[in-house]
Amino acid sequence: MLKLYGYWRSSAAYRVRVALNHKGLDAELVSVHLVKDGGEQHQAEYAKLNPQELVPALIDIDNKEEGEEAFVLSQSLAIIEYLDEKFPENALLPQDLHEKAIVRSMAMSIACEVHPLNNLKVLQYLSKELALDDEAKSAWYHHWIDEGFSAFEKQLVKYSGRYCFGDSITLADLCLIPQVYNANRFNVDLSPYPNIVRIVDNCNRLDAFIDAAPENQADAG
Amino acid sequence: MLKLYGYWRSSAAYRVRVALNHKGLDAELVSVHLVKDGGEQHQAEYAKLNPQELVPALIDIDNKEEGEEAFVLSQSLAIIEYLDEKFPENALLPQDLHEKAIVRSMAMSIACEVHPLNNLKVLQYLSKELALDDEAKSAWYHHWIDEGFSAFEKQLVKYSGRYCFGDSITLADLCLIPQVYNANRFNVDLSPYPNIVRIVDNCNRLDAFIDAAPENQADAG
Repeated sequence: MLKLYGYWRSSAAYRVRVALNHKGLDAELVSVHLVKDGGEQHQAEYAKLNPQELVPALIDIDNKEEGEEAFVLSQSLAIIEYLDEKFPENALLPQDLHEKAIVRSMAMSIACEVHPLNNLKVLQYLSKELALDDEAKSAWYHHWIDEGFSAFEKQLVKYSGRYCFGDSITLADLCLIPQVYNANRFNVDLSPYPNIVRIVDNCNRLDAFIDAAPENQADAG
Repeated sequence: MLKLYGYWRSSAAYRVRVALNHKGLDAELVSVHLVKDGGEQHQAEYAKLNPQELVPALIDIDNKEEGEEAFVLSQSLAIIEYLDEKFPENALLPQDLHEKAIVRSMAMSIACEVHPLNNLKVLQYLSKELALDDEAKSAWYHHWIDEGFSAFEKQLVKYSGRYCFGDSITLADLCLIPQVYNANRFNVDLSPYPNIVRIVDNCNRLDAFIDAAPENQADAG
């Protein structure tokens, strides 16, 4: 049995929700409210579970033996690779060594270059510590999105089919779609990125993505 | 034959250099000066090779067939996983599914949470676009290091042996050591993180780490 600690608007949790859906895995979804009361992720109970005080975190209960602690895993990409190895059906990475490497590289170009600069804790720092106004925060947000999406668009020209890499859903799609959802919240003009727009449209027709979308979560509000 | 485009002070290139050394792989190292002339990574020739305009990038020439383009890969963690799969000797990830997942999670807690906020392009944005003074930039740097290292230290209490995960060098060490090198440049007090200090000391006795250190690179200056 799997338990996923997440939050409806967290891009990283959104990635894992798509992975679970795509692979047809049941998981209990537990909401950790990232804003209420200074953020439930910082409360003692959750911090003990995940010392990084971030969502998502996955618990794989099956791994627990009598008297043993359950297996807890943080970091969305590590969680998805774990799920993909443990439950190989509907693989999210190609078998071929070179293809797999390219998919990982595309995923990380979002997960290591764009998302870390534009997530909640960074935007909070910009407001609270640097006292940036909305215009300066928006410029920051757009800068990193534009830089990341420009590079990603070039990769799509080379590698995309119906989805980011060829015609199967991969880890790269799981990173792109939540980042675009996030970009839309910040009114990013996506017209310079026709392949991104096309692929997001293709993915968002699939149940795995629809059911994982923030607005369709029980804790959305 | 392998060719690695990097820069002596790039933490991400440093990770890949350790991987190559640890696995005993020869690679031609090509320097891309990240500062000179506005950054050689933005020049047309390199941007064509790696549209992300970042280092490192790996070229695996062996994969090139007559008339084919050579295989080019960006993103340090994708490069290291590729090398580890293609050249399994001296593995950088454990075989066990759960152990492998934890190592990836530890590596990503540096590569997705700390490094992206404190690398050159971000510090340049803080100076040029936000006109932060040295004190405010230092506070930014220290904030993300302290947050990341506090969480990492807790993981080490649980999982470390001689190195980050047990007694073998893993991907987690390859991420930690360059980040600590970087933190030392910014005069971060590491005394709250005794396990980090201990493991860095253990790693830095090994030739794989010594030979990959920034100051020992041909382009150091």
